[in-house]
Amino acid sequence: MEFGLRAIGIIRSPFIEAPGTPIQPAFARGAEGQVIVDEPFAPALDDLEGFERVLVYWMDRAAAFKPRVVPYRDTRERGLFATPSPCRPNPIGMSAVRLVRREGRVLQIAEVDVLDGTPLLDLKPYVPEFDAFPRSKAGWFETCGVDRTVADRRFH
Amino acid sequence: MEFGLRAIGIIRSPFIEAPGTPIQPAFARGAEGQVIVDEPFAPALDDLEGFERVLVYWMDRAAAFKPRVVPYRDTRERGLFATPSPCRPNPIGMSAVRLVRREGRVLQIAEVDVLDGTPLLDLKPYVPEFDAFPRSKAGWFETCGVDRTVADRRFH
Repeated sequence: MEFGLRAIGIIRSPFIEAPGTPIQPAFARGAEGQVIVDEPFAPALDDLEGFERVLVYWMDRAAAFKPRVVPYRDTRERGLFATPSPCRPNPIGMSAVRLVRREGRVLQIAEVDVLDGTPLLDLKPYVPEFDAFPRSKAGWFETCGVDRTVADRRFH
Repeated sequence: MEFGLRAIGIIRSPFIEAPGTPIQPAFARGAEGQVIVDEPFAPALDDLEGFERVLVYWMDRAAAFKPRVVPYRDTRERGLFATPSPCRPNPIGMSAVRLVRREGRVLQIAEVDVLDGTPLLDLKPYVPEFDAFPRSKAGWFETCGVDRTVADRRFH
């Protein structure tokens, strides 16, 4: 079964290649960017200013799917679905970047961990009542020993 | 710009149509289901058992995109991107369902708010350190007056 997606805008960021790009918004303090939403979708941005986070995008420069990978924050291979690594069967990315303000169809964002030029697929509002699970178990993350905060070339 | 997605499995749930289906995992206590992952992707499930949540899927029965909608938990129109409503330009759904256990390429899940037969696109591990923002502002959700917990026909 196959489905078609279309870009609905583009993400601008300071990062032009994977090496050195923060691997999570938590490691992207000071990194600012923009989301430029295509004209037909601008009316759908109304009311978004009251929310703080979330972005869905197409990881257009991710490497092909690999079932097992060594994640950035571990030293051994893990099943791909147990990692946030970009080389997924469907390279859909999701980042809880910070929404700073809206200016028409342009969103100023911060804590950006996305490559410049990344195609935008969706914007979803982060609602803590439904989306925050502070005590959810985090598998191998709970014992991993690698404190890496930026990407290298392994997944691109 | 267009991209192609492929289903990598299927989601089984007790819900065969939108009316009566919980609108969030938080309202889906007692609703159990399965994720059946296609054979080629089974090795990528390793290490997932240690995590509790997350599922990405294609909302195959969502209505066409509408820029403004009355969300389930409000009485007035909001910009679509400020809501979790399914009639999005790219109907990518994301649910923090609970992972109960893995049996080969079948995952037993609970707190399921997804329609039976929904195509699976991705499995992502929920990592509280990166994904939980308990104090994130929630826009109109903070003042909305509707306590609806199940869907009706408006978005399908």
